[in-house]
Amino acid sequence: MIKPTPLSGFPEWLPAQQLAEQHFIDTIRQIYELHGFTRLETSAVERVSVLEAKGEINKEIYGIGRLQGPPGRWEMALHFDLTVPFARYVALNSGAINFPFKRWQIQKVWRGERPQEGRFREFYQADIDVIGDGELPLSFDAEMPAIIVEIFQKLNIRAQIQVNNRKVLLGYYQSLGMNEEQSANILREVDKMDKIGADKVKESLLTLGLTSELADKCLALCQLRGCPAKVLTQAKDLNVDNPTFKQGLEELAFIAEELSYLDEDSLIFNLGIVRGLDYYTGTIYETILPDYPSLGSICSGGRYENLASQFINRKLPGVGISIGLSRLLSHLFAKKAIDCSKQTPTQVLVSWPTEELRPACRQIALKLRQAGIPTEIYHKIDPLKKQMRYASRQGIPWMLFPYIYSDEDPNIEIKNMTSGEQETLALEEWIGKIKSM
Amino acid sequence: MIKPTPLSGFPEWLPAQQLAEQHFIDTIRQIYELHGFTRLETSAVERVSVLEAKGEINKEIYGIGRLQGPPGRWEMALHFDLTVPFARYVALNSGAINFPFKRWQIQKVWRGERPQEGRFREFYQADIDVIGDGELPLSFDAEMPAIIVEIFQKLNIRAQIQVNNRKVLLGYYQSLGMNEEQSANILREVDKMDKIGADKVKESLLTLGLTSELADKCLALCQLRGCPAKVLTQAKDLNVDNPTFKQGLEELAFIAEELSYLDEDSLIFNLGIVRGLDYYTGTIYETILPDYPSLGSICSGGRYENLASQFINRKLPGVGISIGLSRLLSHLFAKKAIDCSKQTPTQVLVSWPTEELRPACRQIALKLRQAGIPTEIYHKIDPLKKQMRYASRQGIPWMLFPYIYSDEDPNIEIKNMTSGEQETLALEEWIGKIKSM
Repeated sequence: MIKPTPLSGFPEWLPAQQLAEQHFIDTIRQIYELHGFTRLETSAVERVSVLEAKGEINKEIYGIGRLQGPPGRWEMALHFDLTVPFARYVALNSGAINFPFKRWQIQKVWRGERPQEGRFREFYQADIDVIGDGELPLSFDAEMPAIIVEIFQKLNIRAQIQVNNRKVLLGYYQSLGMNEEQSANILREVDKMDKIGADKVKESLLTLGLTSELADKCLALCQLRGCPAKVLTQAKDLNVDNPTFKQGLEELAFIAEELSYLDEDSLIFNLGIVRGLDYYTGTIYETILPDYPSLGSICSGGRYENLASQFINRKLPGVGISIGLSRLLSHLFAKKAIDCSKQTPTQVLVSWPTEELRPACRQIALKLRQAGIPTEIYHKIDPLKKQMRYASRQGIPWMLFPYIYSDEDPNIEIKNMTSGEQETLALEEWIGKIKSM
Repeated sequence: MIKPTPLSGFPEWLPAQQLAEQHFIDTIRQIYELHGFTRLETSAVERVSVLEAKGEINKEIYGIGRLQGPPGRWEMALHFDLTVPFARYVALNSGAINFPFKRWQIQKVWRGERPQEGRFREFYQADIDVIGDGELPLSFDAEMPAIIVEIFQKLNIRAQIQVNNRKVLLGYYQSLGMNEEQSANILREVDKMDKIGADKVKESLLTLGLTSELADKCLALCQLRGCPAKVLTQAKDLNVDNPTFKQGLEELAFIAEELSYLDEDSLIFNLGIVRGLDYYTGTIYETILPDYPSLGSICSGGRYENLASQFINRKLPGVGISIGLSRLLSHLFAKKAIDCSKQTPTQVLVSWPTEELRPACRQIALKLRQAGIPTEIYHKIDPLKKQMRYASRQGIPWMLFPYIYSDEDPNIEIKNMTSGEQETLALEEWIGKIKSM
């Protein structure tokens, strides 16, 4: 006999947590679909050559091979994100896809990392991207924050999405006389602002050879954050005469206008956001949860020039965002921030008191299920106390007793398992009541 | 640049097919949950020792290892079914689980098989099982066919579930004086009935050393199939005096009684079903689709004595059934049996005719989404013909024009993209109409 032990880095939730994870996935998907994103699921396995198409050999990739015999050269591997498989899918099926292509993709990804807090070897990502053919209108850049705000509202979690635009940053450094390499170096330091503070960043900028005055100017921009209208005014007041900078501000202004209906707490502009160095070219996003500050950004993304240049000779610009679902859930579970009292989707347990009442039980359960209400019949003739204990332990909210139910008398006894209250009502009437709740 | 090519054995659907697969998964899950099964997802990765706990080294297992450096000994692998991971999960978490434990599990599994028609290396299975602690009432055996019938009804696919009981078979061969080994040999031959016919099976039985009379008796039982009441009568008329045989018939009679509300085409008893030799101990199920006979059984399962004996010293009997989802879908796609005209979940495309109308577009889209209707605003100011072409290609059923919409005049123009009909209606009124459809 083999006593099973958990596999480090491969999280697996208990039954009640499984329901919570499903609820999160369902909610995210529902909001994605309300905005017209369509489902995509790619195979978990890719050619190694596809995963390595960007040039670097990734130590974190899990290769797969048949257990029998030596693996020889790795040819297939598990995907480590959803972007590379998506790019490969679009390149492979570009003839069958209508552009702009809006897809959601909620799948597990695998990384051979050393497991540590908040880092998993197998975890869920929940991505959306819109891909254009040749060009992609800015309206989609404004859609991303709207979607993320809706998702967290629906999940009842306070969230703040922070928006910036790379063009604002790059144009600004250009206007200060920096070349590309210098700009990149500055951005790398500015990116550390929230971790090490403005003073330390300034020190680093001086080390890079900037004058104190230039370093202060660099810092001035990236410290602008707050409500979109205010940040836009402050940025304009810097009087920067640079076309890239101005275009970036115009793009931000469009997003501010489109999302003016959102409240101030859920959307801010933060000109200190950098998000890596070589992928994003316009709008960039990060999302923090004010009640869980140690999480950092749980949902990030941005606009990029070309999705699939490594796979197809066709310009496919896009904008996307990704929720780190497993990292979010494991944090919320650890903080006991999610109600885990339900062990089952069952809403109603029909009691089975005697052999004679079995047909009545069956009829009642059929009607409830036809009405879309998840229903179990208790599985054998046990003392009522034992049947009720099962309902309580499972977190089933209602119990029904079929004593008097028949075609002639449609009444049933109903027990609210939370309050303990009991009432007698016609079955159809009660179904109507429950469905309207 | 790397030109991507499909990976043989790893199916990936086009956008419209993706929606169909999602619809199948949603429907299966919905019916599973209506019967009180709760979601379980285990990690895709298991220890090799767990996957091999049953003793055999499975050539089809895909091991995983980090791409860098030699894999050395395989320690982890991808699961090849959902039963072993489920057994391991139950053993690992038995203290946190309420029994009977009803779980659904819809996940991909991986097998390093040679790809061929209907055989994949990565595919979906959709399983349910109920596990008892020490014992498991028979009522669950009757629940499985009810669920499967509901699923295929909801999917609008004709299906017939066929039920047998191993005790009937084993008791019958016992009564003919066979020992366990002989019974197993006979069952192995009987199992080929549908493939090679009764005459060939009889030949094989004679080769096993049976007399012609005995061989005929063996064949007599397994040719009984049809409506449950009839098969039960015919089996009783065989006058077999064996307690195992009788218990098997009693169990079948209970199932017949519980499912008497199902119509004759969807449920039959078939005493010729064998389903392997060493796992199932009571009720067994197979499911055929009369319109797709070459598929064979697309959904099989049964009752077993002990789920997790290789992992825990505790008797956990169960009953379960599994739908071969990817095999089913790929067959239906190949037969063009699934409507694949929709490329998106979007129900409404709001036209964007002029810059000035953008705020009206936004307001309309917000209201539609609040009502739960997936809605896109067309992404830029294009000629109306182009906007309509996008809706048509995507299979979006409705298009809305916001020309006159305002707080004062809530009317919008609506175009039914299928019929071409157009009407003008107040937005809220139209939403009510759509929601009631």
